[in-house]
Amino acid sequence: MKPINVGLLGIGTVGGGTYTVLTRNEAEITRRAGRPIRISVVADKNLELARQATQGAARLVDDAFSVVGDPEVDIVVELIGGVGVARDLVLKAIEHGKHVVTANKALLAKHGNEIFAAASAKGVMIGFEAAVAGGVPIIKALREGLTANRIQWIAGIINGTTNFILSEMRDKGLPFAEVLKEAQRLGYAEADPTFDVEGVDAAHKLTIMAAIAFGIPMQFDRAHIEGISQLEAEDIKYAEQLGYRIKLLGITKRKENGIELRVHPTLIPERRLIANVEGAMNAVLVQGDAVGATLYYGKGAGAEPTASAVIADLVDVARMQTADPEHRVPHLAFQPDALQDTPILPLAEVETSYYLRLRVDDQPGVLADITRILADQNISIDAMIQREPGENEPQTDIIMLTHLTREKQIEAAIVRIEALPVVKRKVIRLRLEELDK
Amino acid sequence: MKPINVGLLGIGTVGGGTYTVLTRNEAEITRRAGRPIRISVVADKNLELARQATQGAARLVDDAFSVVGDPEVDIVVELIGGVGVARDLVLKAIEHGKHVVTANKALLAKHGNEIFAAASAKGVMIGFEAAVAGGVPIIKALREGLTANRIQWIAGIINGTTNFILSEMRDKGLPFAEVLKEAQRLGYAEADPTFDVEGVDAAHKLTIMAAIAFGIPMQFDRAHIEGISQLEAEDIKYAEQLGYRIKLLGITKRKENGIELRVHPTLIPERRLIANVEGAMNAVLVQGDAVGATLYYGKGAGAEPTASAVIADLVDVARMQTADPEHRVPHLAFQPDALQDTPILPLAEVETSYYLRLRVDDQPGVLADITRILADQNISIDAMIQREPGENEPQTDIIMLTHLTREKQIEAAIVRIEALPVVKRKVIRLRLEELDK
Repeated sequence: MKPINVGLLGIGTVGGGTYTVLTRNEAEITRRAGRPIRISVVADKNLELARQATQGAARLVDDAFSVVGDPEVDIVVELIGGVGVARDLVLKAIEHGKHVVTANKALLAKHGNEIFAAASAKGVMIGFEAAVAGGVPIIKALREGLTANRIQWIAGIINGTTNFILSEMRDKGLPFAEVLKEAQRLGYAEADPTFDVEGVDAAHKLTIMAAIAFGIPMQFDRAHIEGISQLEAEDIKYAEQLGYRIKLLGITKRKENGIELRVHPTLIPERRLIANVEGAMNAVLVQGDAVGATLYYGKGAGAEPTASAVIADLVDVARMQTADPEHRVPHLAFQPDALQDTPILPLAEVETSYYLRLRVDDQPGVLADITRILADQNISIDAMIQREPGENEPQTDIIMLTHLTREKQIEAAIVRIEALPVVKRKVIRLRLEELDK
Repeated sequence: MKPINVGLLGIGTVGGGTYTVLTRNEAEITRRAGRPIRISVVADKNLELARQATQGAARLVDDAFSVVGDPEVDIVVELIGGVGVARDLVLKAIEHGKHVVTANKALLAKHGNEIFAAASAKGVMIGFEAAVAGGVPIIKALREGLTANRIQWIAGIINGTTNFILSEMRDKGLPFAEVLKEAQRLGYAEADPTFDVEGVDAAHKLTIMAAIAFGIPMQFDRAHIEGISQLEAEDIKYAEQLGYRIKLLGITKRKENGIELRVHPTLIPERRLIANVEGAMNAVLVQGDAVGATLYYGKGAGAEPTASAVIADLVDVARMQTADPEHRVPHLAFQPDALQDTPILPLAEVETSYYLRLRVDDQPGVLADITRILADQNISIDAMIQREPGENEPQTDIIMLTHLTREKQIEAAIVRIEALPVVKRKVIRLRLEELDK
């Protein structure tokens, strides 16, 4: 099937990530989209960088304006950033009838009204999932997933730099200035961090979310913006004594007489899930009148997480342009002829870690017998506790956590362990998942 | 604009919720969908119940089969449940060229392959957002939001009953049987709780997620299913000592030689966000190769949360059928001519709670002066701590949390407080949000 041709403007971090992911997952993405998505031309001032990133697989130009008018290009992906040239390019692309996908929150927060009006007039799509919370599909949730609801408010941790700094200030009790330096060293903060730490970036994203939640135009210049640079470590400590965490939240609320739109450090009860979002992660909490609270969490920045959102928009456009309008989004996510008959593994082949509890006689040599059996089955132990038996209690509990093991190995070990005379009841066996990668 | 006509099969909890939300949010939903969505006919064996729920605003019939063939009906919403009559009705509806929206996870997990094949052949849509995790738009995230990714695994708390029971067992140290009784009394568990507590319901939902994550057919009969009825309170306690929580997880993983598909109680590190999902809430953690981990959280059951998902599917169908294919999903979620010019409120009108820190002379009467000023501004105090001053330290800190207050009131109070001679530096003022409703 004819590929959909993408013109990529800017091949920096996110552009490079988009290229990498589209290439690596080409088969999977085509199975979902119904047709291949191909970056056919890349515009970047730095042609050498572009050459390295694309390894000669795409046409390279240094003039982005030639791409937005290129008749072969179906979708323009704008990853140049800023609100000057980027605005001109996006408007030109629309004028030429191109669909546009962008990660540029500043551009949309400031010039979104103009851009969306132009796009509506031309009948083209503007995808901007990547503009808010990186790879977290929060724009799709608001535009499509929660359409039944009167949205009441949104509260979001939508800037990773500031959340990283606040997490570190709390963890280590250090002042803002010191943690900022560490964040800069680690690459979590820019050399000039103003945009992030003063809340401007969060306000751009909040402005976009407020518009699609409440059906209002972008009104960035009416947002109240306060950052974290004045925040003192002492207040984080006092807040904690009172049961609260301090997060930089973007908050927008529907009130009777208007909409609140504000970014500022905020105390939130520590028992809320969003209060436990640490490091450079993002999370958005949305309150709808029917659904109640829903939360969306993930990486808010970085090459591939942001590319994930850019490509989701590209797939949306590709699906929109398939021949069969009723099948835009395939029932099972993949096109019906692209399903695979991958087998479900039998339980014996499942690989996980295990929690074992053994009721045993409290006597010497028991642990040696058990660990010998586990070693024979190639099962290695990650942690162990042994309950102190009560006075005159002849038996005790041994609890063990194993490293990754196959189910059939643990089953074999358990059969042998239960046959030991010192083991007094069936072994309790639970599975354990680290869920970290 | 011509309304889209819905035939509703079954007006129990979710059906009633769907009717209520569609009615209450009619204006908002129409602004998003581009045309009204109207329940034109309701089929229920209990006509009296149906009459009460719809208050005479829809045609009522007791024969659901007459609805699926009704030429006036555009979309059939199946909320009858079960896998017998529901299957016949859905297949008949498809045969008649109707789009179908269903919350029936058992039906899809068991007969999904047949149903989706029939729907593909007829060119109709099957919406099933409500089948997994209630109002949380996880189906949309998997089918559309994460299309760039090779999904590696999914781990979900997708049954509220069992999560409620596990939360209570841990909180109160009570055995399963006792907590189950409490859950039944509170309406969190059915009289016959087997389906929930033995993991069958979770396995239905997991089967559906695995299919759309990996592009495989539904294979419910190959799932390994283990519930929580055998779980002992002691193991929850031991797990906690080792830094883990026990949750009933649905887990599906892509391995080299196949797919793991399993539901069982699982230890997970307590520092993971998903380990802190308490009570009857649902959460799904998805690991994609590009985006990393993303998490989706919210109410997994109940009339209006489930209705939220049903209606989102209805809006998807309605948008799909608008005249202008490029504008299926409006840029700003609402149709361009349905935006509203709601004003952004000035900061002075913002209403929130406040954290105040005051550096004051450690002498009698200070607190009286300050609380008097707050009372004059109608600001009431929710909590207060006063730091014990060090030896020979003439000053101390007072920290206060206020109840809901308007920004202009707090500003006025701060001006007066800072004018007190006993107050030694600018008042630190942070905002506080409970984020609970």
